[in-house]
Amino acid sequence: MLASGDLVRTGQWGITANDSPTAFLSKFTYGPSIEGLFLQSNLGVVTKMSIWLQPQPQAFMSCSFSMPFFDDLEVMVDAFGEMRRNGTIPSCVWFTSLIETLCIAGRREDYWKGEGPIPDWRLEELRLETGYGHWYARFGLYGPKRVVEAQFEEIKDVLAKKAPTGTISGTLYADETGVDAAKVPVEHGSMFVGVPQLWSLPLINWPIPKSKTDGKAAHGDYAPVIPSSGKLVMEWMRKSKPICEENGVELMADFFMHERHVVLMNMFTWDQTDPVQKQNIKKLYYGLHEVAKERGYGMYRAHVNHMDLIAGLNDFNGHAYNRFVEKIKDTLDPNGILSPGKQGIWPSGFRHLREDQEYDG
Amino acid sequence: MLASGDLVRTGQWGITANDSPTAFLSKFTYGPSIEGLFLQSNLGVVTKMSIWLQPQPQAFMSCSFSMPFFDDLEVMVDAFGEMRRNGTIPSCVWFTSLIETLCIAGRREDYWKGEGPIPDWRLEELRLETGYGHWYARFGLYGPKRVVEAQFEEIKDVLAKKAPTGTISGTLYADETGVDAAKVPVEHGSMFVGVPQLWSLPLINWPIPKSKTDGKAAHGDYAPVIPSSGKLVMEWMRKSKPICEENGVELMADFFMHERHVVLMNMFTWDQTDPVQKQNIKKLYYGLHEVAKERGYGMYRAHVNHMDLIAGLNDFNGHAYNRFVEKIKDTLDPNGILSPGKQGIWPSGFRHLREDQEYDG
Repeated sequence: MLASGDLVRTGQWGITANDSPTAFLSKFTYGPSIEGLFLQSNLGVVTKMSIWLQPQPQAFMSCSFSMPFFDDLEVMVDAFGEMRRNGTIPSCVWFTSLIETLCIAGRREDYWKGEGPIPDWRLEELRLETGYGHWYARFGLYGPKRVVEAQFEEIKDVLAKKAPTGTISGTLYADETGVDAAKVPVEHGSMFVGVPQLWSLPLINWPIPKSKTDGKAAHGDYAPVIPSSGKLVMEWMRKSKPICEENGVELMADFFMHERHVVLMNMFTWDQTDPVQKQNIKKLYYGLHEVAKERGYGMYRAHVNHMDLIAGLNDFNGHAYNRFVEKIKDTLDPNGILSPGKQGIWPSGFRHLREDQEYDG
Repeated sequence: MLASGDLVRTGQWGITANDSPTAFLSKFTYGPSIEGLFLQSNLGVVTKMSIWLQPQPQAFMSCSFSMPFFDDLEVMVDAFGEMRRNGTIPSCVWFTSLIETLCIAGRREDYWKGEGPIPDWRLEELRLETGYGHWYARFGLYGPKRVVEAQFEEIKDVLAKKAPTGTISGTLYADETGVDAAKVPVEHGSMFVGVPQLWSLPLINWPIPKSKTDGKAAHGDYAPVIPSSGKLVMEWMRKSKPICEENGVELMADFFMHERHVVLMNMFTWDQTDPVQKQNIKKLYYGLHEVAKERGYGMYRAHVNHMDLIAGLNDFNGHAYNRFVEKIKDTLDPNGILSPGKQGIWPSGFRHLREDQEYDG
């Protein structure tokens, strides 16, 4: 629905005859494709959409691979990156750091009694105590049983050559009539079988001691899109770790690996009732932004407070992308009634509200 | 490049710092995605683009499956459709009809000395003489050798159950360091290994006898997007066959099968110097359009002469899609200098040139 109240249907859903049987089956449009305009957008309100379902596969294998040390990430990203690009692993691989594993099971005080973030020596103790890796990669294989088994054998062989100090595990669920996603235990299934879960929610309480009953947990992230390169992802972790620690938090990072890029989250949690923590988190965010900006990394999301900052990265030709979208905004929504400023897209009447795009301390 | 001469970069290529290393790796945009606006478009001129390359796979299997009779298509589409949706066949399957196979090797007169299109009884003779199927499905499998072999075994088993009268064949090309696409013979490789070819071009001469030295070959198609359903694809063939034959040509059809839809081409070739053939082809086009329109099928492409007709199918809410795109057109190109009317998108100053959308005989 546009700001004028007019309803537009995208793709072949614009055909009303016989309720267009291809309306939801294809993304083809005859003419320009306009769907993208309504992603991360204030150009309209999406009132209906369709979701493609996938048949239950005959087999699902829940796979994980871990490596012990912080510096192992480079080798790990390159080994998995190649398998994503050549199709050996057909779907997304989710990488998490040790702190992300720990923070779901407890709070910082459960692991570390001292001041500030957990130091490296203590983290190494925790790794040895828990038996976890410093980095975990998790992914699913889906399909006919013999295909899934062949994929897993291949992945094992590749990793034995390229990342021999790592540990792989795979658990197969198979059923001729289709694996029942609801019956896969949460530690193997969850988002990998399309079952929504809130199991990671406790991480928000990480920084708050149980004794501080008036504490108020908050969570944010800095989320750059980075090439799927061992060297560059490792560099990001090496650069962002001290910035986190200088501002009182551990490096709490995870990322989703696609064929050519990773979508990375530097997560941070803090106590909203503590002004020092709030100020530190602000410094942390702008510190990470400095590193990303220098390297030309864009974001895929940002909090409303940072939308102008992140939209400002698109600086080619006097912010041509923003000027282009704002021109469309003014045409479709001349009074700027739909979410003015969202994603840094301002209607003409509100453009003076665009915030300075650099850190103001 | 917009009509104003302004240059816009899409996606993360809008970031100039360090020549954004993710510019060509990801399709993520912070904010609305505008790339789609420049597909099948007159909103700008695409002056640069990137193409994602794929590593050469360790193994490539050229696969084909044929079934003898016209009516076998229903079973065949459903068997393959299920395997496309559950991931057993990870890439596109190309279906062709017997006439499409014959027309690349010769002209109509080589197969049929009578008047008009080849009758069914003669086509059946030709099928038996050549040993071809009435329908062919061709596809490629790509990846590690053991995965490709497991996929092929699975596909053979599924087809043996669901389409037992068909014939499957698979030819494996494997090399530890990557299959060299240029060395795969054209009958197995070609578009399936990314090597452009003109081998189907002779089909254009199909209707022209060799003795007619002043004939001028022409080619067109009607190209609907249809659900990947055996019943509906079969229905399309049954409805379109007599329309072709009434207008002097055989049913010459092929289609590309994706997960949920097929992109179908009803091809037709004629002699441009023959006014009767020209008139018949026009009737044929509008005859097929009638069938598609009744069913709510959209097109993915159309000749410039038919752009208004096809754009007219998007009739929801007073052609809201067209009104929407034309509003953007008027904003970006107020003088209508870029391809006015392309894809049925007219700038305000030329809108009176929009053609009647129904057949005028």
